Amino acid sequence: MANKRVYLFEEGNAQMRDLLGGKGANLAEMTNIGLPVPPGFTITTEVCMEYLRSGGKFPEGLMDEVRAAMAEVERRMGRKFGDPDNPLLVSVRSGAKFSMPGMMDTILNLGLNPQTVEGMIRLSGDARFAYDAYRRFIMMFSDIVLDVERHKFEEILGEYKKRLGVTLDTEVPADALKELCSDYMQLVEKETGKSFPTDPWEQLQLAIEAVFKSWNNPRAQVYREREGIPWDLGTAVNVQTMVFGNMGDESGTGVAFTRDAATGEKQLYGEYLVNAQGEDVVAGIRTPLHLDELMNINPEIYKQFDEIAKLLENHYRDMMDIEFTVEKNRLFILQCRVGKRTSLAAVKIAVDMAKEGLISKDEAILRVKPADIDQLLHPQVDPKAQVQVIAKGLAASPGAAVGKVVFDADTAAERGQTEPVILVRPETTPDDIHGMLASKGVLTARGGMTSHAAVVARGFGIPCVAGCEAISIDLHEREFATNGITVKEGDWISINGSTGEVILGQAPLVEAMFTDELHELLDWADERRGLGVRTNADNPRDARQAVEFGAEGIGLCRTEHMFFETDRLPIVQDMILARDEAQRRSALDKLLPVQQKDFEGIFEVMEGRPVTVRLIDPPLHEFLPSYEQTLREVTELRVAVNTLGGSALKALLEEKERLLEAIESQREMNPMLGLRGCRLSILYPEIVEMQVRAILQAAVAVKRRGIDVHPEIMIPLVGDVSELAFVREKLEAVAKAVVEETGQDIDYKFGTMIEIPRAALTAEEIAQHAEFFSFGTNDLTQTTFGISRDDAEGKFLAKYVEMELLPANPFEKLDREGVGKLMRMCVEDARKVNPSLKLGICGEHGGEPSSVEFCHEIGLDYVSCSPFRVPIARLAAAQVAIKDKVSVTVDK
Amino acid sequence: MANKRVYLFEEGNAQMRDLLGGKGANLAEMTNIGLPVPPGFTITTEVCMEYLRSGGKFPEGLMDEVRAAMAEVERRMGRKFGDPDNPLLVSVRSGAKFSMPGMMDTILNLGLNPQTVEGMIRLSGDARFAYDAYRRFIMMFSDIVLDVERHKFEEILGEYKKRLGVTLDTEVPADALKELCSDYMQLVEKETGKSFPTDPWEQLQLAIEAVFKSWNNPRAQVYREREGIPWDLGTAVNVQTMVFGNMGDESGTGVAFTRDAATGEKQLYGEYLVNAQGEDVVAGIRTPLHLDELMNINPEIYKQFDEIAKLLENHYRDMMDIEFTVEKNRLFILQCRVGKRTSLAAVKIAVDMAKEGLISKDEAILRVKPADIDQLLHPQVDPKAQVQVIAKGLAASPGAAVGKVVFDADTAAERGQTEPVILVRPETTPDDIHGMLASKGVLTARGGMTSHAAVVARGFGIPCVAGCEAISIDLHEREFATNGITVKEGDWISINGSTGEVILGQAPLVEAMFTDELHELLDWADERRGLGVRTNADNPRDARQAVEFGAEGIGLCRTEHMFFETDRLPIVQDMILARDEAQRRSALDKLLPVQQKDFEGIFEVMEGRPVTVRLIDPPLHEFLPSYEQTLREVTELRVAVNTLGGSALKALLEEKERLLEAIESQREMNPMLGLRGCRLSILYPEIVEMQVRAILQAAVAVKRRGIDVHPEIMIPLVGDVSELAFVREKLEAVAKAVVEETGQDIDYKFGTMIEIPRAALTAEEIAQHAEFFSFGTNDLTQTTFGISRDDAEGKFLAKYVEMELLPANPFEKLDREGVGKLMRMCVEDARKVNPSLKLGICGEHGGEPSSVEFCHEIGLDYVSCSPFRVPIARLAAAQVAIKDKVSVTVDK
Repeated sequence: MANKRVYLFEEGNAQMRDLLGGKGANLAEMTNIGLPVPPGFTITTEVCMEYLRSGGKFPEGLMDEVRAAMAEVERRMGRKFGDPDNPLLVSVRSGAKFSMPGMMDTILNLGLNPQTVEGMIRLSGDARFAYDAYRRFIMMFSDIVLDVERHKFEEILGEYKKRLGVTLDTEVPADALKELCSDYMQLVEKETGKSFPTDPWEQLQLAIEAVFKSWNNPRAQVYREREGIPWDLGTAVNVQTMVFGNMGDESGTGVAFTRDAATGEKQLYGEYLVNAQGEDVVAGIRTPLHLDELMNINPEIYKQFDEIAKLLENHYRDMMDIEFTVEKNRLFILQCRVGKRTSLAAVKIAVDMAKEGLISKDEAILRVKPADIDQLLHPQVDPKAQVQVIAKGLAASPGAAVGKVVFDADTAAERGQTEPVILVRPETTPDDIHGMLASKGVLTARGGMTSHAAVVARGFGIPCVAGCEAISIDLHEREFATNGITVKEGDWISINGSTGEVILGQAPLVEAMFTDELHELLDWADERRGLGVRTNADNPRDARQAVEFGAEGIGLCRTEHMFFETDRLPIVQDMILARDEAQRRSALDKLLPVQQKDFEGIFEVMEGRPVTVRLIDPPLHEFLPSYEQTLREVTELRVAVNTLGGSALKALLEEKERLLEAIESQREMNPMLGLRGCRLSILYPEIVEMQVRAILQAAVAVKRRGIDVHPEIMIPLVGDVSELAFVREKLEAVAKAVVEETGQDIDYKFGTMIEIPRAALTAEEIAQHAEFFSFGTNDLTQTTFGISRDDAEGKFLAKYVEMELLPANPFEKLDREGVGKLMRMCVEDARKVNPSLKLGICGEHGGEPSSVEFCHEIGLDYVSCSPFRVPIARLAAAQVAIKDKVSVTVDK
Repeated sequence: MANKRVYLFEEGNAQMRDLLGGKGANLAEMTNIGLPVPPGFTITTEVCMEYLRSGGKFPEGLMDEVRAAMAEVERRMGRKFGDPDNPLLVSVRSGAKFSMPGMMDTILNLGLNPQTVEGMIRLSGDARFAYDAYRRFIMMFSDIVLDVERHKFEEILGEYKKRLGVTLDTEVPADALKELCSDYMQLVEKETGKSFPTDPWEQLQLAIEAVFKSWNNPRAQVYREREGIPWDLGTAVNVQTMVFGNMGDESGTGVAFTRDAATGEKQLYGEYLVNAQGEDVVAGIRTPLHLDELMNINPEIYKQFDEIAKLLENHYRDMMDIEFTVEKNRLFILQCRVGKRTSLAAVKIAVDMAKEGLISKDEAILRVKPADIDQLLHPQVDPKAQVQVIAKGLAASPGAAVGKVVFDADTAAERGQTEPVILVRPETTPDDIHGMLASKGVLTARGGMTSHAAVVARGFGIPCVAGCEAISIDLHEREFATNGITVKEGDWISINGSTGEVILGQAPLVEAMFTDELHELLDWADERRGLGVRTNADNPRDARQAVEFGAEGIGLCRTEHMFFETDRLPIVQDMILARDEAQRRSALDKLLPVQQKDFEGIFEVMEGRPVTVRLIDPPLHEFLPSYEQTLREVTELRVAVNTLGGSALKALLEEKERLLEAIESQREMNPMLGLRGCRLSILYPEIVEMQVRAILQAAVAVKRRGIDVHPEIMIPLVGDVSELAFVREKLEAVAKAVVEETGQDIDYKFGTMIEIPRAALTAEEIAQHAEFFSFGTNDLTQTTFGISRDDAEGKFLAKYVEMELLPANPFEKLDREGVGKLMRMCVEDARKVNPSLKLGICGEHGGEPSSVEFCHEIGLDYVSCSPFRVPIARLAAAQVAIKDKVSVTVDK
């Protein structure tokens, strides 16, 4: 028994996407909930596959079913397809289950021929309207169905306009258009050797066949291949009555949102154009009216539309974007879909709808994209503004900033007092921090997502574009050049740290908005999520910010950032350059009280929340002057001594040479894989002993002030259990000593970072010597991939993503297949031997939604991320918990 | 029922090590095969544990059993323990199941007291002998049993010698020794408050107790802990009749090997000293006779001994080291054990014994240590020579070399023509290769096991000590200094690349010896091993050497080493510095015939054996001049331009600046993890396209000469399957093009190196796009550990091994726990989807015996190593195959 092949819109519904395609199912749904949709019918996807499988044989008897459906449509409209007196025109569209680029475009006004066009003139009383529709139809049909290239039609029209001395299509009068139509017909005959089909039923059959064929056109095939859409789905064909908003002042067309798409306010919001078609609104030739004015122009239609909008919102349970047309006082709904909205609106609409009872709180949480929150927390370049992007670098620290260009930190610090500045540097060093703090934003020409500029800026919440290799900075001339444009010191620029864009001049910004609705949404999220959310913070300022954003602890406090501050760096350098342990210890004695103070500040802010402190991690040379600079100085001095001589110069040279030698002895071929982390602590335990003493003494001091403290001491870069056991034993002794000396009990933990593959692979052993693990996924990604982030991000990773060799930058989005596999193994092995082990992540992935999802899946206890990502992580964690709990299907 | 607690030697055998300890079981075994072992008995280990478990209660009735056993000994010897007329003296020794340092020393001459010493005088007719034995006994017993420190006795003896005006102990006459004995007794009484025990039975009981207690002394406990020896094994106590070789000219003592320990010749070989005790031989005061002379002195004894030697060799089925004593024409065997031997002897003895039918070929293979082979393949410092080691670096390329010091490659190339030279450099670069080739050995102050010097020297088989940080080189003065010694150009030094030692002057060498027996042994090995053995070779010379050593193919041919040669480097640099693809292609066109020629040479030598060619791997900056040097030059030129001016100088500066910029743009923070391997091939496919064309064209040319060729093209540093798929597709096209152009079919394969963790983790996908995998365990170890070998080996890895944080340097011995775990997973996952995949290893571990064993275990198809390691790998592979097949127990 043959299946039903043609469905009137009344016969379908939203669930029939397989058979009717997405568009057909939606038209059927709208028809069935009583909306005034122009009547029509859908030919099923099965028919398409039958056609293709038969090698292009038009299915027998199909046109009979089409005629039967058309008869029902004619009945409803009171017009007849191909009737010269009262013609019915239709549109023909493709429509697969999934929206798919490459499929056939729309053909409008099908059914027109020399006879019916006269009927249209009579019906509309407007010959220009009718011939304009006719010439458009001939062009579209010829292009799509008959394969006559569109530009050939455009050329003929161009000649007409030239001859008439007009510039706009709309200025071509009716009789010229009529003549044009016959010229078009001749062109088609010349190109195809056949005359243009004038039988409406032949037109329709050819159009239906063209839709079937378009399923297999190359662009569609490529798309299906890439998206993994099966070949045998096929496309449906939608045939729908044409309605016209340009049939006089009782006609018109409009677009509306059921709520304000910019703010989320609950009010109908849109535009209306009298006597116009949809494409006139888009073309922007005439200024549309605010939708409210329709109330005055045509209160009855407005009332109808307002009711329909409410109905649609209730039906789809979301804010809708609706296209409609009024044809001679008759309202038609042409399309409706879930409306696009700003981040601000997304949050407000979700929360409002949950409170209205339209959706559940779970759904409200799932409706907001984590990226929306990111937008709300930072100033953004106004999306409506026209800006001149002059270069693009890495989106290193989110948010936008506007300021005058300065080229060094001192100038930034000075001018930043009185006016907004953007610090532009080849790259930044610890010496630039005061300047960075005084700047609205930072732009560097070199360095990756983990460069000094990027890390520090993210820490401070300052927008930053890093590694912008397209700009070349001339520090002497105090200017930078890019793509032929020169920007001098004092010129205005804007940077967008969320996209990496560098913009000339002052871009208009939209301020950060942590709204009440966002607070409410995140509170709901907190009630649902299983994962804890901590923050990466190295100082009280960041810690405070993170707590305000909802952080439940610190997952990573990098102690070495404290070492970089200007008052400490000289002491740190003394320590490194010390000739023996005694000298080193004396420098460390000076650092102890400074570090203790740092920790006291953080512990106070965190008020009893757990604080994971990572002991010193980077290779020591990072704290020393640059090798290149020192080499340059020594070479210059050497030349000077040789030419000028002089004992003072000579002494200076010798001193510099000693420094160079010291730096050289710390230099490494691959510092990422060198003497750092616990390796450093094994060779020079006195450094971490000082740090642990500082942590414990700070804890004692703060506890005595009545504030609870829970330090978790993290030993980095462990690759073998013996390293952890060795260092921990030494440090436990220090911790116990402080507890004994002070008589103050402190609840401290020791743990390690899992950041090199061998640690993950031997987790079963390491877990026996740790109270917690924290995945350092930045380093773990580097070692698992064998890729240095600093070197790769600019040089080849972006290219890899562009070439689709990798689905995403694995430093942004956790690589589940490789790094994730290691993590999963590690978690399983570790929990087997130490079920009470606390497991977290403190790499930058901890704030990236899909990575947060993965952390939930493998059963981590918490994620930790930079303060500004804390709200994102809270939302993402709740979303995965909800998805995990039930399968709420939200139709979007 | 109580167990038997005391065993006469006659009552035990070699299998009773648990109960009688190793020594006791061995004494019993020798007694039972009819050797004239001085009679005695063993108290079981169980008794020791009973004593210890009871908290130190001497087991009831034990002394009764001891007396019964002693009675039997007395019967055999015809003397009586404690009998003043005909005294029997005994030794008391500990003896656990495993030989264990820290256990009780031997007590000799037990049973002496004022009465029995007189009996000894009468028996020996030598008062000095008797009192000397007596004073030694008192000292040993007091030290070990009574806890009176030995040095106190030594001091008293010293005073005697001073008073007598003599220097040697042996010059102290009998009466003085008698007096000394009574002074010793007084010392003991003073120190312990008790008089020295004179009852022989009391002496014996105390000595037995001391042995029991020594099981728990701290040194023994530490040793057991470390070696994992269970506490409850306990030690046995051996009580044995004393015999004396110093009772006149019919007495004597000797040591002999059943075969020549130096050469392996089958002839009794040893030394004999008339009228002497074992310790006299060791002391070296008198020159012993060659054992053959015993034939003249005492033919009867010689004949007896010769028979015993044969008996022992047959019994133990190995070359034995035998200690014996003749007491008044009566031969006693005191000890026998498997004899130590040189590498040369080890091979000869194993092969000879197998041919004699004494052992199986399997056993012969298992008897030779892989390290023995390494010794035989390289000249070695004569182990008997006294040399002055002045510094120690890394053992970077095995073998020893002697030569005059030169400080640059040009001098080496020149002087090396006429005399042996050692090239000493801070580090080497590709520019030094001609000098390295002309040198006997290479010594560098910097760089690790993978430094240029180390890699090149190993490739060429030149001994090399690298990274010898203890020497400081002054290139201007042309000298180096170390530990206060200055070595000038032209001075003789020797280096030992097998140990890392730098030796002052000309050390005597032992030449390399690839003997017939070694060939034979390795042929046997080849019949048994499952693993294939290939070689890492980059040029025909190495390839030829490796084939001679038995390589069955090339597992790694590094194409970039070819790029470093002086005639090619400029073209390679042109290619790298090219401004666009066209320039790059033109440089590549010049390289193509050169590379083709290289491959032809290798293919010809390999005569149809498979050759795995790795496409370009290192980062491009390795081919450019050093950044530091160029920076120095630019800085100097800048100063010169500023002070002197001149357009020529200015032009030079600009050119250098351009070069510096180019180098800078290639510079990386962590080049190991940067733009190299297939990453390079993805960005600049034209380089590898040229290489594949060169490989295929070479294969065609060689095949046309009638030589079979099987190239296997290896794409390095793959981390994601997409990289492999992308590069392979491009290269397959090139290969197919060559086959088509030439009409010559070539059997080529494409595969990849597994050298980063992610490749191993995603093997299931990668294996679907490869025909072979080769584990690059050098890089895989680096990334799995997160350790840069170049940086770590000198700085902290050695220290880690020293501190026992790691059991071995993982770059030498494959880390089974981490790296090995990844490899095992990879092999399993890969074979699952591609059962025909060929799997090998080409890291340096491929020639290290325990790593070869692991490769066998996880089921690889072959190992590949440097030419000089090929014989080692053949042996190691056979050994593990034999062990795997059956459990041949070889008692050593």
